[in-house]
Amino acid sequence: MDCNWDLEIDVSVRSVAEWLISEVPPGGYIGFDPFLFSLKTQGDYSVFLESTNRSLMSVPVNLVDQVWTDRPPIPPGNLTRLPDRVIKRSWEMKVEHIRNQIRENPYEPTALLLSALDETAWLFNLRGNDIPYNPFFYSYTLLTMDEIWLFLHTERVTEELKVYLNAASCSGPLCVQLKSYDSVREHLQTYVDQPGVKVWIGTEYTNYALYEIITPEEKLMTSTYSPVLTTKAVKDETEQRILRDAHVRDAVAVVQLLMWLEKAVPEGKETELTAAAYVNKCRSKQKDSRGPSFETISASGPNAALAHYSPSEETSRRLTVDEMYLVDSGGQYLDGTTDITRTVHWGTPTAMQKEAFTRVLMGNIEISRTIFPSGTRGVNMEMLGRRALWEVGLNYGHGTGHGVGNFFGVHEWPVGFQSNNIPFRIGMFTSIEPGYYKENDFGIRIEDVVVIKPAKTKYGHNYLTFETVSLVPYDRKLIDTSLLSSEQLQWLNNYYETIRKLLGAELDNQGLHEEKKWMLKHTEAFMESGSSASVCSSSLTLIALAVTLHNII
Amino acid sequence: MDCNWDLEIDVSVRSVAEWLISEVPPGGYIGFDPFLFSLKTQGDYSVFLESTNRSLMSVPVNLVDQVWTDRPPIPPGNLTRLPDRVIKRSWEMKVEHIRNQIRENPYEPTALLLSALDETAWLFNLRGNDIPYNPFFYSYTLLTMDEIWLFLHTERVTEELKVYLNAASCSGPLCVQLKSYDSVREHLQTYVDQPGVKVWIGTEYTNYALYEIITPEEKLMTSTYSPVLTTKAVKDETEQRILRDAHVRDAVAVVQLLMWLEKAVPEGKETELTAAAYVNKCRSKQKDSRGPSFETISASGPNAALAHYSPSEETSRRLTVDEMYLVDSGGQYLDGTTDITRTVHWGTPTAMQKEAFTRVLMGNIEISRTIFPSGTRGVNMEMLGRRALWEVGLNYGHGTGHGVGNFFGVHEWPVGFQSNNIPFRIGMFTSIEPGYYKENDFGIRIEDVVVIKPAKTKYGHNYLTFETVSLVPYDRKLIDTSLLSSEQLQWLNNYYETIRKLLGAELDNQGLHEEKKWMLKHTEAFMESGSSASVCSSSLTLIALAVTLHNII
Repeated sequence: MDCNWDLEIDVSVRSVAEWLISEVPPGGYIGFDPFLFSLKTQGDYSVFLESTNRSLMSVPVNLVDQVWTDRPPIPPGNLTRLPDRVIKRSWEMKVEHIRNQIRENPYEPTALLLSALDETAWLFNLRGNDIPYNPFFYSYTLLTMDEIWLFLHTERVTEELKVYLNAASCSGPLCVQLKSYDSVREHLQTYVDQPGVKVWIGTEYTNYALYEIITPEEKLMTSTYSPVLTTKAVKDETEQRILRDAHVRDAVAVVQLLMWLEKAVPEGKETELTAAAYVNKCRSKQKDSRGPSFETISASGPNAALAHYSPSEETSRRLTVDEMYLVDSGGQYLDGTTDITRTVHWGTPTAMQKEAFTRVLMGNIEISRTIFPSGTRGVNMEMLGRRALWEVGLNYGHGTGHGVGNFFGVHEWPVGFQSNNIPFRIGMFTSIEPGYYKENDFGIRIEDVVVIKPAKTKYGHNYLTFETVSLVPYDRKLIDTSLLSSEQLQWLNNYYETIRKLLGAELDNQGLHEEKKWMLKHTEAFMESGSSASVCSSSLTLIALAVTLHNII
Repeated sequence: MDCNWDLEIDVSVRSVAEWLISEVPPGGYIGFDPFLFSLKTQGDYSVFLESTNRSLMSVPVNLVDQVWTDRPPIPPGNLTRLPDRVIKRSWEMKVEHIRNQIRENPYEPTALLLSALDETAWLFNLRGNDIPYNPFFYSYTLLTMDEIWLFLHTERVTEELKVYLNAASCSGPLCVQLKSYDSVREHLQTYVDQPGVKVWIGTEYTNYALYEIITPEEKLMTSTYSPVLTTKAVKDETEQRILRDAHVRDAVAVVQLLMWLEKAVPEGKETELTAAAYVNKCRSKQKDSRGPSFETISASGPNAALAHYSPSEETSRRLTVDEMYLVDSGGQYLDGTTDITRTVHWGTPTAMQKEAFTRVLMGNIEISRTIFPSGTRGVNMEMLGRRALWEVGLNYGHGTGHGVGNFFGVHEWPVGFQSNNIPFRIGMFTSIEPGYYKENDFGIRIEDVVVIKPAKTKYGHNYLTFETVSLVPYDRKLIDTSLLSSEQLQWLNNYYETIRKLLGAELDNQGLHEEKKWMLKHTEAFMESGSSASVCSSSLTLIALAVTLHNII
């Protein structure tokens, strides 16, 4: 950056707004590109700015774009439809289901506008490649009870897809009308100008450029999330089954990485970059692989204490038996998206590293094993992921988990543990990922994906719990079992039995005998070694002693 | 009610709004009395109504008042100032402190408007008796950097109080100008009409009648809570000390009730009403008593399963050894406000009653003993109060706790475990009150008041925890210690040691020897009998057996 620019580190809405207030005099206007702001974000800024007499002004013709002559084109490549084997609901069924929700809404909307890329991709069971690691394509949808307008780069729709979408020559409520991506404002305007219409939008993901043309107010209906996002959040039976399957194959790749590192690291030639390349290669060999779901975080020693670190040629550290190593990676598969983090040590961890790792693991287990009423929100239980750390004055500075998709975004909101996430329901998938980071020293994160399922309870109904679908053992060397409660230890042993069963079968199928042996060794049951158990074992010693004495006499 | 009225049970904003939408055609207006709606409540209704093209219309002249000719007058009685011994900060110091917050606010307000009754009472260290159980008086305050307008029924201000408030003949920024209660809108209008002014209000407690005259928008500055409410939430050293003291004396009254009931109930003459009268009488004898802080909930058997039950001549049940009994009561004292609930059984509780009581207690303990970073919000940890219940499919349908004041409201927001409560800081007081209610059968609630204090941790700083200041033992008969973790059992024994020390000294002071004996019996230490300990005891049986065999041979 040259001296025309100042770098501001903190990018919260509040700090940006405070900077704007210091730079813009009262009565002033601040232009913004409405295609780059959701209605929600624009509202957050307005709260700060309006009360100090500064106003935001929508500038739909982005001034940067006007001088950006060498802008790269969107990636080439046609859109693809998902194969039938990964689908339970056809796009026509989804459209009918969403139309029912429009019909039943008491505020009587006449149309639904979809602005987020995964909303349109989900509705039509289509995928693209416009965004790295995410199988999305640029698109909008305007859905009414009679018509379906799909706005996208139409040249990327093959003849076959046109037939699939009933877009060729068709009349009726299940014909998709393909319109160019750039014409969405114009078409929306035409729709809104009609009498008696009302457009439903979700405020979190609809961009301001579309929101601002839905006037007057009575033509607008808002909810935080569109019905597509809340419907998509709950996976149907097929989606649940195939997402579990993808995690079994994904665990094979991660086990291959961990086994290989255990042997290779002591030889001293491996680095963060070679490890990342190795796991990416392992994943690419699994069935239905579609590449990584995000840039692999492969971080050794102090690098693991940096949030959002990915190794580069300049930063990549050599892996050694003296440093902890954190690998956070995931895959896109035709049937599901995965995301898993393991932290390991190939030498002798310090007592503090072992304690911190164990307490992070306790956080993961405490959330995983908890039973809660259907409809509980993640934000109201996420402290269970931190509590064992808080007890000794440790914590972590990031969220505790996020939804994941079926060949979709690796962060699939609005499911997860953030305050704006929706309540948990059966069939949702979320990551659980507590951590601990010691600056300039090491970083720990343990991340698993779980599915929400019914829990049997003694007295009640409609209670839920989690089941872990990631299937990779934790580093035994880093677990201090004396810190675990007997409930936590039992959960861990049950989880390891599940890994042995499900991952064991998959390793057999793939003929990976060495990996199977490695996995079995790393999933042996833990023995209770807590304080009360110690009392018991000394009692048992006494019994043995008594019996021995008896035999002698 | 005659047939001109329909009774609607559910009174959430959503259900009322949906009823309004069904009754009022699109384009219609719904009048409301702006003195009875906070800005927040009006906004909540607007969200529902505006999007369906119905509008709220402020009607400042309440139509009901126009025909209410026999409206009772406000209670007579002068206002009183708090004695110096219960005050650390004089009203002048508080005014200066709040003015500093006005001065330092980046949005540059010029005045603060106080609408909630406890805001004005706190600021001036004054109390009144306009609201049953709450020592408030009708009032508003408009505070600028130079002037203080206090709106109230001026005839209730004695000459002595006028001197105290510098209200007689005074000039300068610390003179209080007394204005009649009804003139607040007029004065606020005059202030707002001046150029360059900006009035700060809290949106949760400012009534719409005052908000609506602060126009145009740039003359208004809002925060959720006024700086008076957030400052008042953190008790100063004196307030902490005297509020703890009030709880020691309050415990004497509750112990007297429980001891008396233990003897009197088997004789068969006592009822919910006589028990309520007894505890009220016991409290009235304690130093600085100012009556109950709310209508005593004295509920036996199925009555205890009703939310907000208080006994009447029609409903009062006779107390028997066959029913559980719940008593939720509190006192106003010159130095503090108390609120405590105990649930007891004088006969033989069922296994389910014992399990439910123990799990409610586990919830109370789990919150009380947790360690958390300063600034954690109650809503993010309140599930700890429910978790032991959830585990077996039980739950409760009310909040988990609320702030309490120093001779103030027994529900003192914005402290507590609700989603709109502010983060916990050292020096706040809140109740913790999980429960369980079995319809038509029994009700359990265990409520204690706690203070937030620093926690020592192994690695970190700025961690907090709770200390229980209510000092009454729980019914031993209802505690199944085998369900408690060893940490929970240790917490309970530590708490009982505190009761023995603090309440023991007070009972000695008051010469209450029988009560002391009762308290000591009910606070004996529990022995560990958890599940792992049971394993141990069977091991010990085996040892005994082995040793026996040995002896025989």
